[in-house]
Amino acid sequence: MSETTRYAAVVEYNGAYFHGWQQQKHHNEPTVQAALEAAISKVANHPVIVFAAGRTDAGVHATHQVFHFDTNVQRSDYSWLMGANTNLPAGVAIQWVGAVDNEFHARFKAQARCYRYLINNSPAKQALCHDQLTWWRYPLDEQLMQQAAQSLLGEHDFTSFRAKDCQAKTPIKTIHRVLVKRWGNIIMVEVEGSGFLYHMVRNIVGTLLPIGEGHKPVEWMAQVLSAKDRTQAGITSPATGLYFVGVYYPEEYNFIPSQPYGPALLEPVLS
Amino acid sequence: MSETTRYAAVVEYNGAYFHGWQQQKHHNEPTVQAALEAAISKVANHPVIVFAAGRTDAGVHATHQVFHFDTNVQRSDYSWLMGANTNLPAGVAIQWVGAVDNEFHARFKAQARCYRYLINNSPAKQALCHDQLTWWRYPLDEQLMQQAAQSLLGEHDFTSFRAKDCQAKTPIKTIHRVLVKRWGNIIMVEVEGSGFLYHMVRNIVGTLLPIGEGHKPVEWMAQVLSAKDRTQAGITSPATGLYFVGVYYPEEYNFIPSQPYGPALLEPVLS
Repeated sequence: MSETTRYAAVVEYNGAYFHGWQQQKHHNEPTVQAALEAAISKVANHPVIVFAAGRTDAGVHATHQVFHFDTNVQRSDYSWLMGANTNLPAGVAIQWVGAVDNEFHARFKAQARCYRYLINNSPAKQALCHDQLTWWRYPLDEQLMQQAAQSLLGEHDFTSFRAKDCQAKTPIKTIHRVLVKRWGNIIMVEVEGSGFLYHMVRNIVGTLLPIGEGHKPVEWMAQVLSAKDRTQAGITSPATGLYFVGVYYPEEYNFIPSQPYGPALLEPVLS
Repeated sequence: MSETTRYAAVVEYNGAYFHGWQQQKHHNEPTVQAALEAAISKVANHPVIVFAAGRTDAGVHATHQVFHFDTNVQRSDYSWLMGANTNLPAGVAIQWVGAVDNEFHARFKAQARCYRYLINNSPAKQALCHDQLTWWRYPLDEQLMQQAAQSLLGEHDFTSFRAKDCQAKTPIKTIHRVLVKRWGNIIMVEVEGSGFLYHMVRNIVGTLLPIGEGHKPVEWMAQVLSAKDRTQAGITSPATGLYFVGVYYPEEYNFIPSQPYGPALLEPVLS
C-alpha cells in the first residue's frame, strides 16, 4: 500500500460563478470547494477533500487561494494541474500544484492573508470584467481614503467591522498594511493582516466610501474603530469587488508561490 | 417640429455575450447593435438606428467602439448615458455620449482603427476574465513576435490574412503601428491601421504564434505577406482575445474621447 502524499495548490476563481468556497447551509448551489473536489477526485480516482487557506463568501474572487489535499496515488505535479483543470468548469482554474510535508495545512499554517478590493469609480458602469469590479459612480478621493485607512494599522478590536454571523473566537486582529491607490478609474484597496473577521474587508471598504466622497471626515475611520459597534460603521460593500490575493506561510514553504498579485489583468501593474 | 441632432457615443462590450455587432444572417441571437438600439430607443421614445466605427465579429470585445445615432428629442448627454445604460444588459455599457454635427459618421469619418489581442501565455488556463483572454500554454518569445510583426508596417496587399467571406473592395491596407509586448503571463499584440480585412488581426496573430513558439523563423511573416495566399498563413486565432480599442477621426472631432486604451483592467498599464 502506497503512502499518503499531501499536495498544496494555488487556485484562481471568479466568485460570481459560485456560492462561496463552502456551502453555509444545505443548498445545492455550486461551490469552489465542491468543484475542486470533483475535479481532483477524478484525477486521483478516489474521493479527495480540499482545505482552503481562507474560505471566501459568495461572489468573492481569488487570484491566489491556497488549498491542500491528501492522496495515495502517484501523479506528476503537471498531471495534477492539467488533469484537474480539464475537469473544472469555467471560472475556476488551478495555477500551481506541488507536494508538501504532512505537517503543512493551508489554513492553520497561514501567518497572514491579503485581500484586494477593486472599485470602478466612473459615471459609466463597466461592461468588461463586469462581475469583477464594484461600480461606484460618485467621485472618490483616494488620498482621503488612504489617510483614513492608516488608522487601522496594528492590533485592534475590529468589532465595528464584524458581521453578525462571524464565528471567530476573538474580534482582535492585526493589520500589517493598508493601501488605497488609483489607476485611472480603478481604485484599489489592499489590506494585509493576520486574519480577518466575517465581512471585515467589505465593511472597511464600506466605511472608506463616505470618506472618499467627502461626506465623512478622515478621522471618522478611527472613531468607528474605537466605537467597537457595527452600527457605527458604513455599509457592507458588494462582494463583486473583493479578491483573496495572497497568503503567507513559514519560510520552509517558500517554494509555494506566495507573492500576492493583482486580479488577472491588473497583475502587470501591481507586481 | 424639432430638428434632428446627431450624437456620437463610445461603448465598451464583452463580445462573449453577443453574436457580434451585427447579425450576419437571419438569426435571433443577441447582437451589440440590437441591444444598443433597444436601449437608446427607450430613452428617445422613438426607434433609433446606430452606426459603428467598425463592426466586430462574434466573440470580439471592445473597450472603445464609437457609434452615432440621430434623434429629434432633447436630452442631456448625461441622460442619454445613464438612461441607455440602465436599459442595457450586462456585458455592454456606454462610456460617453455627446452631440456632433450632421456631417459626422462613425464609420466613414474614421481615419484609423486600433485593435489589441491578449494572450494568457501560461501552463494554466485563467479563471478570472476567462472569456477575455486567449489561453496559449506553450511558451512564446514575444521578442521574436515583435520583430516578425514589423514586416507588416506600411501599405501592403494583405490577401494572405484575409478570410474568404471578406467583403472589402480591396485587400490593400496600411498598417501604422504593430507592437508585441509582455507583462508577466500576458502578451499583447497591438495593431493600428487605416482599415482591416475580415479576420485580419486574428490571422496575423495566428501567424505570429508559430514564430513565438520557435517553429517558424522571424522571416516567415514577410514570406507569408508577400505570398498573397491565405493558405500560407497561420490559423485564425480565437476571437476571445481580440479587442477593438480605438478609432481616429479628423481633428475637428477631437472632443470625442479618442485615445485607444487597454482592456478594462489593463488600462492603467497601457496608458
